[in-house]
Amino acid sequence: MKVLEERIREEGLILSDTVLKVDSFLNHQVDTELALQIGQEFASIFRDLPVTKILTVEASGIQFAMAAGIALKVPFIYAKKKKAVTLSEAVYSAPVHSFTRREDYRISISQKYLGPEDKVLIIDDFLATGVALIGLADIVKESGAELLGVGCVIEKSFQKGRGLLEQRGIPVHSLARISSMSPGEVHFIDNDVQYKEMIKESAGC
Amino acid sequence: MKVLEERIREEGLILSDTVLKVDSFLNHQVDTELALQIGQEFASIFRDLPVTKILTVEASGIQFAMAAGIALKVPFIYAKKKKAVTLSEAVYSAPVHSFTRREDYRISISQKYLGPEDKVLIIDDFLATGVALIGLADIVKESGAELLGVGCVIEKSFQKGRGLLEQRGIPVHSLARISSMSPGEVHFIDNDVQYKEMIKESAGC
Repeated sequence: MKVLEERIREEGLILSDTVLKVDSFLNHQVDTELALQIGQEFASIFRDLPVTKILTVEASGIQFAMAAGIALKVPFIYAKKKKAVTLSEAVYSAPVHSFTRREDYRISISQKYLGPEDKVLIIDDFLATGVALIGLADIVKESGAELLGVGCVIEKSFQKGRGLLEQRGIPVHSLARISSMSPGEVHFIDNDVQYKEMIKESAGC
Repeated sequence: MKVLEERIREEGLILSDTVLKVDSFLNHQVDTELALQIGQEFASIFRDLPVTKILTVEASGIQFAMAAGIALKVPFIYAKKKKAVTLSEAVYSAPVHSFTRREDYRISISQKYLGPEDKVLIIDDFLATGVALIGLADIVKESGAELLGVGCVIEKSFQKGRGLLEQRGIPVHSLARISSMSPGEVHFIDNDVQYKEMIKESAGC
């Protein structure tokens, strides 16, 4: 997604070879117009799938799950990181380790809102180590719902998250795939070029 | 907002005289269509004000700040409840006590995204004790920005939050105002009736 890659180049702050900060427009201050475009892009990618619900995890996945839900006209659920007093009923849950916050926690969702009749699209802001997304995938499996795919806004392709998801047979699509980065420099994998190569291959070229 | 009140009557679970659960459509599973309508309602209320930024707090305010941001065509910022590793720069912060989660925490936002040039609308899902909203109002004040008003989706009018905000001269508007509730029963203050009475009063009737 070119407009997203350009924005990452312009406004992203690369703090190290692994830490990218995009909190001026994606996950602290949020450019609502860009978030809507991101939702439309996810919708155009997953439009042919019979998605009934979008699943994400609080907090930074919410704006993109919402945008995708608007575009696909389906509700979304955000997994909670702690069990609130008002989340008293039975939950599906999974353990997660946050490298950003350096802590272990559980994510959970009410069993009332996901079941065997659902076809789920998982949306999140970042795909890096993949631990939060694996946790969400485990929750979908536990619920008996079908997981149709994972959509991420930014993928750090040099980390193992995509591989872990693909090993489980989960289709992954990220809107901006970073092959490498270092302070002042970011390189993207060109999704368009990849598609063209895939099309050429399938056409026997 | 009639459609919201009806939905609360139909789907809201009243666990006690003070705890209302709306997590089937507002703050765990989210009806994206209703969230958009809520954003449009906030926009229609605050449209004449020169809002430059919407401010909320993670996580359950995000979908409504996003919806209001879409309708008013402005970005939103969500205050974080903990200082993340990637939120390394100077922050504005305020202490908050959560009665729902029974814990104390700090909310903070980067100083880069709010300043004297901003005119802020605060949006949140619930107005009850008002502590999170007072925290956000303190952050706006600290930043030098102007606070134009507070918009909440559901107000528990029998708690002290509105009074605390109004004492500070902050205009408050809630889309569903609950005057009292008990298991199986919820009563709303009729905003429309109030407006008509205000209009009659100002017309000298």
